[in-house]
Amino acid sequence: MEPINLFDYEKLAQERLDPAIWEHIYGGSEDEVTLHANRSAFEHLRLRPRVLVDVSTIDMHISALGAPLSMPIGIAPSAGHQIVVPEGEYATAHAAEQANTLMIVSCFASRTVEEIASATTGPLWLQIYTHRSLEITGRLVQRAEHAGYRAIVLTVDTAHLGRRERDLRNNFQRTQYAPLANFIDTTGTTPAQLNHLIDTWETVDWLRSLTKLPILLKGILTAEDALLAVERGVDGIIVSNHGGRQLDGALASIEALPEIALAVAERCEIYLDGGIRRGSDVMKAIALGARAVFIGRPILWGMAVAGEIGAKHVLEILRQELYMAMTLAGRPDLAALDRSLIKS
Amino acid sequence: MEPINLFDYEKLAQERLDPAIWEHIYGGSEDEVTLHANRSAFEHLRLRPRVLVDVSTIDMHISALGAPLSMPIGIAPSAGHQIVVPEGEYATAHAAEQANTLMIVSCFASRTVEEIASATTGPLWLQIYTHRSLEITGRLVQRAEHAGYRAIVLTVDTAHLGRRERDLRNNFQRTQYAPLANFIDTTGTTPAQLNHLIDTWETVDWLRSLTKLPILLKGILTAEDALLAVERGVDGIIVSNHGGRQLDGALASIEALPEIALAVAERCEIYLDGGIRRGSDVMKAIALGARAVFIGRPILWGMAVAGEIGAKHVLEILRQELYMAMTLAGRPDLAALDRSLIKS
Amino acid sequence: MEPINLFDYEKLAQERLDPAIWEHIYGGSEDEVTLHANRSAFEHLRLRPRVLVDVSTIDMHISALGAPLSMPIGIAPSAGHQIVVPEGEYATAHAAEQANTLMIVSCFASRTVEEIASATTGPLWLQIYTHRSLEITGRLVQRAEHAGYRAIVLTVDTAHLGRRERDLRNNFQRTQYAPLANFIDTTGTTPAQLNHLIDTWETVDWLRSLTKLPILLKGILTAEDALLAVERGVDGIIVSNHGGRQLDGALASIEALPEIALAVAERCEIYLDGGIRRGSDVMKAIALGARAVFIGRPILWGMAVAGEIGAKHVLEILRQELYMAMTLAGRPDLAALDRSLIKS
Amino acid sequence: MEPINLFDYEKLAQERLDPAIWEHIYGGSEDEVTLHANRSAFEHLRLRPRVLVDVSTIDMHISALGAPLSMPIGIAPSAGHQIVVPEGEYATAHAAEQANTLMIVSCFASRTVEEIASATTGPLWLQIYTHRSLEITGRLVQRAEHAGYRAIVLTVDTAHLGRRERDLRNNFQRTQYAPLANFIDTTGTTPAQLNHLIDTWETVDWLRSLTKLPILLKGILTAEDALLAVERGVDGIIVSNHGGRQLDGALASIEALPEIALAVAERCEIYLDGGIRRGSDVMKAIALGARAVFIGRPILWGMAVAGEIGAKHVLEILRQELYMAMTLAGRPDLAALDRSLIKS
Repeated sequence: MEPINLFDYEKLAQERLDPAIWEHIYGGSEDEVTLHANRSAFEHLRLRPRVLVDVSTIDMHISALGAPLSMPIGIAPSAGHQIVVPEGEYATAHAAEQANTLMIVSCFASRTVEEIASATTGPLWLQIYTHRSLEITGRLVQRAEHAGYRAIVLTVDTAHLGRRERDLRNNFQRTQYAPLANFIDTTGTTPAQLNHLIDTWETVDWLRSLTKLPILLKGILTAEDALLAVERGVDGIIVSNHGGRQLDGALASIEALPEIALAVAERCEIYLDGGIRRGSDVMKAIALGARAVFIGRPILWGMAVAGEIGAKHVLEILRQELYMAMTLAGRPDLAALDRSLIKS
Repeated sequence: MEPINLFDYEKLAQERLDPAIWEHIYGGSEDEVTLHANRSAFEHLRLRPRVLVDVSTIDMHISALGAPLSMPIGIAPSAGHQIVVPEGEYATAHAAEQANTLMIVSCFASRTVEEIASATTGPLWLQIYTHRSLEITGRLVQRAEHAGYRAIVLTVDTAHLGRRERDLRNNFQRTQYAPLANFIDTTGTTPAQLNHLIDTWETVDWLRSLTKLPILLKGILTAEDALLAVERGVDGIIVSNHGGRQLDGALASIEALPEIALAVAERCEIYLDGGIRRGSDVMKAIALGARAVFIGRPILWGMAVAGEIGAKHVLEILRQELYMAMTLAGRPDLAALDRSLIKS
Repeated sequence: MEPINLFDYEKLAQERLDPAIWEHIYGGSEDEVTLHANRSAFEHLRLRPRVLVDVSTIDMHISALGAPLSMPIGIAPSAGHQIVVPEGEYATAHAAEQANTLMIVSCFASRTVEEIASATTGPLWLQIYTHRSLEITGRLVQRAEHAGYRAIVLTVDTAHLGRRERDLRNNFQRTQYAPLANFIDTTGTTPAQLNHLIDTWETVDWLRSLTKLPILLKGILTAEDALLAVERGVDGIIVSNHGGRQLDGALASIEALPEIALAVAERCEIYLDGGIRRGSDVMKAIALGARAVFIGRPILWGMAVAGEIGAKHVLEILRQELYMAMTLAGRPDLAALDRSLIKS
Repeated sequence: MEPINLFDYEKLAQERLDPAIWEHIYGGSEDEVTLHANRSAFEHLRLRPRVLVDVSTIDMHISALGAPLSMPIGIAPSAGHQIVVPEGEYATAHAAEQANTLMIVSCFASRTVEEIASATTGPLWLQIYTHRSLEITGRLVQRAEHAGYRAIVLTVDTAHLGRRERDLRNNFQRTQYAPLANFIDTTGTTPAQLNHLIDTWETVDWLRSLTKLPILLKGILTAEDALLAVERGVDGIIVSNHGGRQLDGALASIEALPEIALAVAERCEIYLDGGIRRGSDVMKAIALGARAVFIGRPILWGMAVAGEIGAKHVLEILRQELYMAMTLAGRPDLAALDRSLIKS
């Protein structure tokens, strides 16, 4: 099968990957209610296309915290890409660069922040958890700043690692397949240490004091927390439920977006991940208040199927679908994607 | 199986047609969400029948832009009917004539507008896209006017051809099966040229200046665009999502109808296509604001099964079902089909 | 299998009956949307049970147009019971008598009105259609009055016989299995003549002038028609969609009931049929405004399985289930079954 | 399979138990609509997690009528535990004690109230029905008071035993597997006598006069009855539909909770059982107004799989899941579980 959409890549990746790795990528927490809600919430939104608009030029350029992107679709952070391809994050970074878009590097990458930065001229953000020792995290942030990363993304939905039952049944250990490159020289930092982080809003202040880079919070799902984030002066929010891998039963990210957009009132940038599989999903997210979206699993599928080329193809498929969706919806630029696009 | 309803014709047609042709006719764009929504939206509407009304005579006559029709059911435009039957649009036109109803001829018909006009005394409308060269389109409109067509239907939902993945997987090329009869003498007009039309509301003005024929816009799904159409002085609107073949995720046509009817307030005629499979669907559409409806795929099924006779039978089945539905709903004429018919 | 509920009787009846007869009893019109809606509408109603009420005595006695019944469950009219059991309506009448409840006899019974009346001391109502010749109908009404029937039920939802596609496919002719006993001596009255009745509200006046018996209209589904019925002075309404056999897509009878109860405001008696399969369904119908309910298909299932005893058992199962439901809902009599029973 | 959640225990228990016993435990009344509603109502509630809250300590301690518990999860009463394990309620009581939580002992336990009390130092409540002779019930209450039970739970939803059709088909007799230990010396008290209790609000007064122990009513599903309970001075309410085993069609217990919490306004303690299978369900129930929840079937599954250890493991799984859910929802204690947790 020649893959023509992201679902094709999903099927092909499943065929090629070790079942335990496949399940690790596929799975959500507990009953996977939120995992499925992320998709079904998109499917239930109905579009109101406009006609006879001049769509001879579709402009999907956007800047993300100042960095120009060719489209409002970037790569979400996910741990150790060597799990699917030997090149690991090199492949991902090249794909992002060729697509002229942004990659968010996971602190649990299987390549160091410096290695990844040296492999691309494209914009990079670093996703971090604050590990038990703030010192370790602080060093990593400074390394990223030094290596030219443009922003720090603090994941805030992982006070404890979600209960992913597929991994428990498979006794899956990610570090068997992909090293924690950024922590190899650090005594004692292991995924196990992630099991109880104790971040609070003070952590954000600490991070603010540590770096001049813009700061985003990833994992916000309520207007209340979005307001607190704005008050703390963060530069961006990523509306996310961690791909359905943390609190099972949490609302779909696209369901959370409208109240957050209303509360933020453009005082910081808003992004979204979770459930994006079609260009029309990107359009829906932007219409409901996101500046851009990030995709996680589909990038891994692309790499599992065809390495860097696969990841690039996944991005290009979404770009073409978004181009098509904006054309057919009569919305020639991203500013035209407003609430009137969605049937209420 | 002796077909007694349109679903029977669907099954029989699937048995008889080449699978790639079947999928071409069946399919919608991308995930076919809108394709299925067209049906399910009808199924979810509940009817409120009235009783003890005099239904000894059921009057379903109506005029469409002045042309008298025996029933509020016409034939929607679809490309190259030779794809299902060698006679192509001759068969369709004969079926429409015998049913005393209207046929909308696709500009991509496999017979020329003149050939089709000469085959019938019934009313014909011509559906057009504005091709890259307005000159080509202009010539076609003038040919249609000369051949006695009663109106021009400009499809406005196809700025780009929707992504029909079944056709992509089958590498389906419609022109292998049915020629573009109207463009055979035209250098360089191919379906590929449809891939990026750049119509705007000015196109409507241009069309208005070109012909005295009534003009309809097909593919409107919002009150906003319906108002713009009225302001431009169009004679009619066809509420349509192109049978679920253009923007996937677009709302069902019957879902769009109420707000459009409210906005238009009888300042132009309103028609609908998409998902009509039963006489009671026709009744629902009229109750929610349509003057008449058009059917597309069922006509092709009829022709695939029994040529002209099949197409005629499909129309007669719907007529009988509508007759029955109006009788059982206690609505003896089309004016009696109002909002009170639908449970809110 | 020992049948312990009505669904058991359904399965057993299907095993025993000729498939064409089974389908005739089972089927609804067209896509059977209304047939299924009749059930699902009941299933979606949630009950609010009260506790610590004195339910040591459950009183489910009621009168129907003055006739005392042991429970608010009667037998709906259905044609020719010889279709399932040689004794035909004798069996049904005996079952009703033993259950101390009411039977509505169909004018298309396979026993004459006089024969049925002579077989039972229980209350009977006669259901009629007004046939092409009012004279024929008039004679039948007078025969019923003379034979001691207590009321006339005019079916008003059958201006034309609904399109029952199962019967069409089976080429099913009911008169092959069960004679039209009441019309055997009448020249030229056949089921075919039912195909176009032309009743209007004047028919009700005519019927009123013809007989002193109470008159009910069966097949009303809207508040508008209920009001007209009250204005004409009818004694009762049976909310019904003819078991999903007439207008497909019509709302479920239980969905129609609340607006009708509100409009009637106790100015005539209200009954309901359609979809009753459990005692709790009876309770729901009464809570939403019905005085009693009628069951149709389950009686035929009972008779198909065990003749008169089966029909009686079906009635007794429902009685026991209603008894249980009222007990567990904390409603010791029918007056206690009000809107507060249903979760809104 | 190593069980890691309650659904695993369900599957394992089904494999190990005699099918008739399995069905007895599994089943609900009639069509099991309420049984399934108990689960689906939980699944449809969407959570709004907060972030960056200090969750370094999760406090799930609570008191139940003054008795300190380590978590808001106790054991619901269910009859004769010897049905699944020879030790019967000894195993259950040990599991509760080790989990530092509460067990509600059924009056139909297969061990006497004294035996169970002597097996544990943990808090016990006694669930009772008022049997035909109040004297029998009174003696049992006094025995419980004497044995150190902390409260009496009067089940109020069982005026008649619900119609559990699985048991009817299996001709299941619980006393074949588990004796009624508390009534062995009592002439003539059998489950059959439960078939028609005639409790009223006066029964509550009688019980109040009989014992100084706190009194709870189990089986309340409406605000009306919750108010009456408060007026009668009860100490607690258990919102419950008896696990879907009494009135089929009754609303899910979690659906009933909000109106009851609103009506009670903290004038007595509110508990809930029915459908709890995940820690996040516990969290949802508390957010909507419950003080704690009780689980029934899962305890029996645990015991069927591994006796006392299994029951303990079931409790510990739920504790861990609740711990995780509170952590990931950013709610470090039970007071933080309020309505804002649930997406409205």
